[in-house]
Amino acid sequence: MSTELLLLDVAALEAALQKFADERDWKQYHSPKNLAMALTGEVGELVEIFQWLTEEQSKKVAQDKNTARAVRDEIADVLLFLVRLSSVLGVDLNEAVVTKLAANAAKYPAGDSTPKRS
Amino acid sequence: MSTELLLLDVAALEAALQKFADERDWKQYHSPKNLAMALTGEVGELVEIFQWLTEEQSKKVAQDKNTARAVRDEIADVLLFLVRLSSVLGVDLNEAVVTKLAANAAKYPAGDSTPKRS
Amino acid sequence: MSTELLLLDVAALEAALQKFADERDWKQYHSPKNLAMALTGEVGELVEIFQWLTEEQSKKVAQDKNTARAVRDEIADVLLFLVRLSSVLGVDLNEAVVTKLAANAAKYPAGDSTPKRS
Amino acid sequence: MSTELLLLDVAALEAALQKFADERDWKQYHSPKNLAMALTGEVGELVEIFQWLTEEQSKKVAQDKNTARAVRDEIADVLLFLVRLSSVLGVDLNEAVVTKLAANAAKYPAGDSTPKRS
Repeated sequence: MSTELLLLDVAALEAALQKFADERDWKQYHSPKNLAMALTGEVGELVEIFQWLTEEQSKKVAQDKNTARAVRDEIADVLLFLVRLSSVLGVDLNEAVVTKLAANAAKYPAGDSTPKRS
Repeated sequence: MSTELLLLDVAALEAALQKFADERDWKQYHSPKNLAMALTGEVGELVEIFQWLTEEQSKKVAQDKNTARAVRDEIADVLLFLVRLSSVLGVDLNEAVVTKLAANAAKYPAGDSTPKRS
Repeated sequence: MSTELLLLDVAALEAALQKFADERDWKQYHSPKNLAMALTGEVGELVEIFQWLTEEQSKKVAQDKNTARAVRDEIADVLLFLVRLSSVLGVDLNEAVVTKLAANAAKYPAGDSTPKRS
Repeated sequence: MSTELLLLDVAALEAALQKFADERDWKQYHSPKNLAMALTGEVGELVEIFQWLTEEQSKKVAQDKNTARAVRDEIADVLLFLVRLSSVLGVDLNEAVVTKLAANAAKYPAGDSTPKRS
């Protein structure tokens, strides 16, 4: 898999988050260390939605309007902090993703259904 | 902010992850509940990189080649599971992000530098 | 529930961790912020053990010797960082626990089986 | 370090949590998988308290009465789920902690101040 492949383009989102932070003077808080912590908190809120559900119930969270909105909001929160973290670190998210997918393809050959990470 | 705004396009990445999972018969493991847990594990690995660093040191992790690669890999892992979770739930990530940014803009007026979330 | 109740005594463990940190000059790293991050990483490792298991499988992890050891080790890691965090913050863990249990008892009356937190 | 050493006694707390769960018919929700997820959520709430603070500020959270209470509550929540998880898995927490401390002592010789885990 070539790293020239464009699977993901977050340039517009990175710019929006940069502008948002600048307008609020939040640069002082947005160290990679702090953003990694913020990511933890948001993932925790996302996980809380699913913690007492069975796997089958977790597949149907979109059926309840309020839960569906909560899930979308928490997923967005995680993504926003992740993109912001990449941005302040100067990480090229597309390169990171394409490289990792290639590594995963080598690590988990197609046809192997052992439960591992995607 | 209109939800018609296109800040993020992950369609190609979602398709790549779907294909990857299908080829390994991983659908059985990819319930939203399980994917939310996998997200936790990956965020934990990302946070571990920064835990004993000062904020200043965390800004310079890209200076060490190995650490820079580790950071990119962990960020990619988090993103891959997040996009996969959105995909199995049928969440429109662009809509989720645009809606959340609009909510954040209302919640944190520009000019307010109180330490809150972006 | 009286806060004079002794449900938990971690004094010996706190002292052991303090000695351990002192002998390695780790005080410089053990700020509450850093210890909270370390806690995240360890919980992530614990969660990874369970992420692809069904709930039923998760009840049987002790049947495999290696998995049982891994679970015990990760639980211990979480506990050690939690006790260390309490220690550097001067938190009385017994008071914290007794107070929280009383609050939980008021919040979740006995007989209510709605899925909430213990 | 002998595993006969008693650094921690959580028997009374385990019993209290068991009774609490029984009275609310929560056994059905308390699989190890679910409890590990609940742990994640609580750690996320704890981390959120510290995420925008500097390390120095994090050392002084006890100076603000409300923050001090929030920290104690979140630490207690993490501990309660951790003890409950150990309990349903039949893990002997004292054995787990004593064994891990011995392993840590072997892994990190006294006098080595490299930033590692306690």
